[in-house]
Amino acid sequence: MNTIPNTNDNKDKTKFYKETFEKISEERKQKIINEAIKEFAENGYNASNINTIAKKAEISIGSMYSYFASKEDLFLTIVDECFHVLESVLYSINLEDGNIFDILENLLRASRYYAIKYPEFNQIYLDVTTQALSKFSNKLSHKLEEITANKYMEIITRAKEQKLIDINIDDKIVSFCIDNLILMFQFSYTSDYYRERMKIFTGYDTNKDDEKVIKEILKFIKKALSYKNQ
Amino acid sequence: MNTIPNTNDNKDKTKFYKETFEKISEERKQKIINEAIKEFAENGYNASNINTIAKKAEISIGSMYSYFASKEDLFLTIVDECFHVLESVLYSINLEDGNIFDILENLLRASRYYAIKYPEFNQIYLDVTTQALSKFSNKLSHKLEEITANKYMEIITRAKEQKLIDINIDDKIVSFCIDNLILMFQFSYTSDYYRERMKIFTGYDTNKDDEKVIKEILKFIKKALSYKNQ
Repeated sequence: MNTIPNTNDNKDKTKFYKETFEKISEERKQKIINEAIKEFAENGYNASNINTIAKKAEISIGSMYSYFASKEDLFLTIVDECFHVLESVLYSINLEDGNIFDILENLLRASRYYAIKYPEFNQIYLDVTTQALSKFSNKLSHKLEEITANKYMEIITRAKEQKLIDINIDDKIVSFCIDNLILMFQFSYTSDYYRERMKIFTGYDTNKDDEKVIKEILKFIKKALSYKNQ
Repeated sequence: MNTIPNTNDNKDKTKFYKETFEKISEERKQKIINEAIKEFAENGYNASNINTIAKKAEISIGSMYSYFASKEDLFLTIVDECFHVLESVLYSINLEDGNIFDILENLLRASRYYAIKYPEFNQIYLDVTTQALSKFSNKLSHKLEEITANKYMEIITRAKEQKLIDINIDDKIVSFCIDNLILMFQFSYTSDYYRERMKIFTGYDTNKDDEKVIKEILKFIKKALSYKNQ
């Protein structure tokens, strides 16, 4: 099980856990969080059971409810952790590291790296995007997608100033297209369905020969951003 | 509730229902199918209950099990219907209707049309792609994605012969990229999360002003397929 990076960075955010949860040992906290991540990633939120999570974390259901008011609050705490990791993909990218094409290549590689390192977090993200979890959609989409969208806008604006890409492209819709390509590539490392789909479409396997896929996706984006020639 | 088109076309496929199901009235069949679609789309497979579906369809659980051996078989019957509709997006596209760019525009518009007309089918597709349903992945991905991938290959091969697109592009990975863009656009009409995400990225709403999004996605793809100019 992966450990959660930088839990303390979240201090200023809305908390979905009770104060009692803060007071328990780091080890106990981590055990609850890890078991919850496993349960939610494996079964999806709707089919997950807070009693099962308590049992696996070796705490009583009474203790569980003294830390989290509901399954929903436990889930939102976990989603905060997931989103924190997904955001760190973006924060791991330094805008000074080369031009827009270098940055997009870094982003694509970082997406793959995080999807492989933290599969459960991406699996929970996939679950959050389904309609069965629509009650969380509004809150959660703004939390994660705004950061991503703004980051792309920053990258594209800068590249336009540097005259590296067509200045007539629509920044916002092009950001949407690029993120869609990167996200679907990331999903290919997240669920068996998408893994199989990438293999069916490209003939390449996420386990070994994906270098060619990265190169061709980058070529596709690069041409889409370039000045028109027709 | 939408009615199921062309159930009879499926006769040569693997059936997941028992013969008794074939013998009941069309009306009763449709009621069971419709209630199952609603339940699976709303809650996801893992959290759906076959007893609830039987109750809503006004049949006894005994009757339900005389038609379907398990919740899994009922679900696979429903997925067959969903995939049948998703496939019909592809089959609605005539390869003789204009060049590759006209075809891709038709495909994008058809994806939107079907996503709006049959929201539950796309919601079930989204559910199937999550890791919580990995036990179905291998079987289901081949069923749908192979048809899609082959269709793209056909379109791209023909466009290369017509010298409308760069003959040096990698057919397979480019098919993957194009389908990823169309799929994510379609998802934006399928779940509240993706709906909100498209709005955050593009500023446009799936409910009204999406014409500009279609135009820009097409421009993005067109440039990506064109001959290099750098």
